[in-house]
Amino acid sequence: MKTFNRVAIVGGTHGNEFSGVYLLKKWQATPATISRPTFETETLFGNPNAHRDNKRYLDCDLNRQFLLHDLANPELGNYEQSRAKAINLQLGPKGNARTDLIIDLHNTTSNMGPTLILLKSDAFNTQLAAYVAERMDDAVILFEDHCSVEEHYFLCSIAEQGIIIEVGPQPQSVIRQDVLDWMEEMTLHILDFVELYNNNNVPELPDTISAYRYTETLKLPEDEKGERIGMVHKNVQDADFTPLRNGDPIYTLFDGQEICWDGDYEAYPHFINEAAYYDNNLAMSLGKKVDIKVIK
Amino acid sequence: MKTFNRVAIVGGTHGNEFSGVYLLKKWQATPATISRPTFETETLFGNPNAHRDNKRYLDCDLNRQFLLHDLANPELGNYEQSRAKAINLQLGPKGNARTDLIIDLHNTTSNMGPTLILLKSDAFNTQLAAYVAERMDDAVILFEDHCSVEEHYFLCSIAEQGIIIEVGPQPQSVIRQDVLDWMEEMTLHILDFVELYNNNNVPELPDTISAYRYTETLKLPEDEKGERIGMVHKNVQDADFTPLRNGDPIYTLFDGQEICWDGDYEAYPHFINEAAYYDNNLAMSLGKKVDIKVIK
Repeated sequence: MKTFNRVAIVGGTHGNEFSGVYLLKKWQATPATISRPTFETETLFGNPNAHRDNKRYLDCDLNRQFLLHDLANPELGNYEQSRAKAINLQLGPKGNARTDLIIDLHNTTSNMGPTLILLKSDAFNTQLAAYVAERMDDAVILFEDHCSVEEHYFLCSIAEQGIIIEVGPQPQSVIRQDVLDWMEEMTLHILDFVELYNNNNVPELPDTISAYRYTETLKLPEDEKGERIGMVHKNVQDADFTPLRNGDPIYTLFDGQEICWDGDYEAYPHFINEAAYYDNNLAMSLGKKVDIKVIK
Repeated sequence: MKTFNRVAIVGGTHGNEFSGVYLLKKWQATPATISRPTFETETLFGNPNAHRDNKRYLDCDLNRQFLLHDLANPELGNYEQSRAKAINLQLGPKGNARTDLIIDLHNTTSNMGPTLILLKSDAFNTQLAAYVAERMDDAVILFEDHCSVEEHYFLCSIAEQGIIIEVGPQPQSVIRQDVLDWMEEMTLHILDFVELYNNNNVPELPDTISAYRYTETLKLPEDEKGERIGMVHKNVQDADFTPLRNGDPIYTLFDGQEICWDGDYEAYPHFINEAAYYDNNLAMSLGKKVDIKVIK
């Protein structure tokens, strides 16, 4: 069984997602909160310059810069592309990383509650998910395991085990106490679990857990020129992880017309109307509800 | 009795408050929605460059640049200061404006619902408030009449009658349908009222209306160096226009300590944890609940 020696907690990967930034500050003042006997915990401020300017990023989204061929490409030299290389040097290198586990702290304007996003469904992750779900009633488990960890472009994909904690709803550039408390609670459960795992002392866990698995991303309605002509329907707004069925209204055009979802499965939308996704005219992600076997 | 000949509707005074920007686009496509027989309605895009950059403002807050001595000061020449002078030329000049009524459309990240902000409690405004309140169950009436219209630095203070429609909660850089619908409904009620007023045909109104009156603005907790050391307490978050009493928790410090409100009146907080107010470390505004006489 694997042992975790080095864990990194990253905050401020997006400069206007405040919870991680403030938790890092808090933990720097009280390091005992995040230290555990069997491993070292380090913290890293992902995008300090974007935070200084109160923006998600300066040149491009830092959390999309961690593909191996981009990290190896010397021609990608803007601020976030350079920052990605520096972070890869510090925590990685991706594929053979010094850091065993990266926990990357994120906020969303969507009503997703405290969501644990996992990039693969192996023994560690499924046990971790079951452990956290048992201890946090509000926790949502979301698998984005449609590709390998290496194929993901996220910061946390540097390490073999990469986790995103995604908590909302929180407007950009705001600190909400409920969101901060959820994020801290989920982070500390993960650290506790790693400690138990290292000590081969994980408590009894259920055989399966209820989770969601990412399927696809939907775009906002556009005209032929690519201009946005509608918005997320009011019935879908805030209804993250509430099922959407074929024929349910999903968008309202600015002229008043309603557009319905034309899908052949029961979909669970999330990242609904996330502010940062407007850059690419994205409306929401969809997933399926799944029972995941806890691999013991 | 006054007649209104020219009404201006302003959207995008803050570039990342999207509802007004999208309503202006919508009404430009369907101008009949905002035209009425007895007056002209024009629309104005307050801060197009800030919207292009998806920010509240480029150099300084446009909606704080409309004091007479600032408008007259040639040394104030940054983008928003210049834009304020141009808008004052187009809709004003303040003190003797071509425009009889300005309706300025705003969003807040605070849970304020559709709020009608009025800068004085004269016959027109008190009748308007009563008219709107009777037609929109969710409407909140807020008087910011602690100084004269001329002494206000808001864009809408250019005209003798200036109104702010403030609708939330909406994260910056997002369009929520519920918020858009509220904003449009309130705007159209105001236009309908002006039409009735011009025709001396205002329907019977109650003798008083229930409203709020601004009293003071509270700051977030800071240390001696002016650094933020706490946040709005979770009990107060989203509780706009819910009474706050002496001894109620109002802030939580990042070290966990709770700070209680030490006040000698029943306060009604609003603009609670508004993202844009972090620039000045403001936590919320307070008001008193009042019965306002409808002047007929």
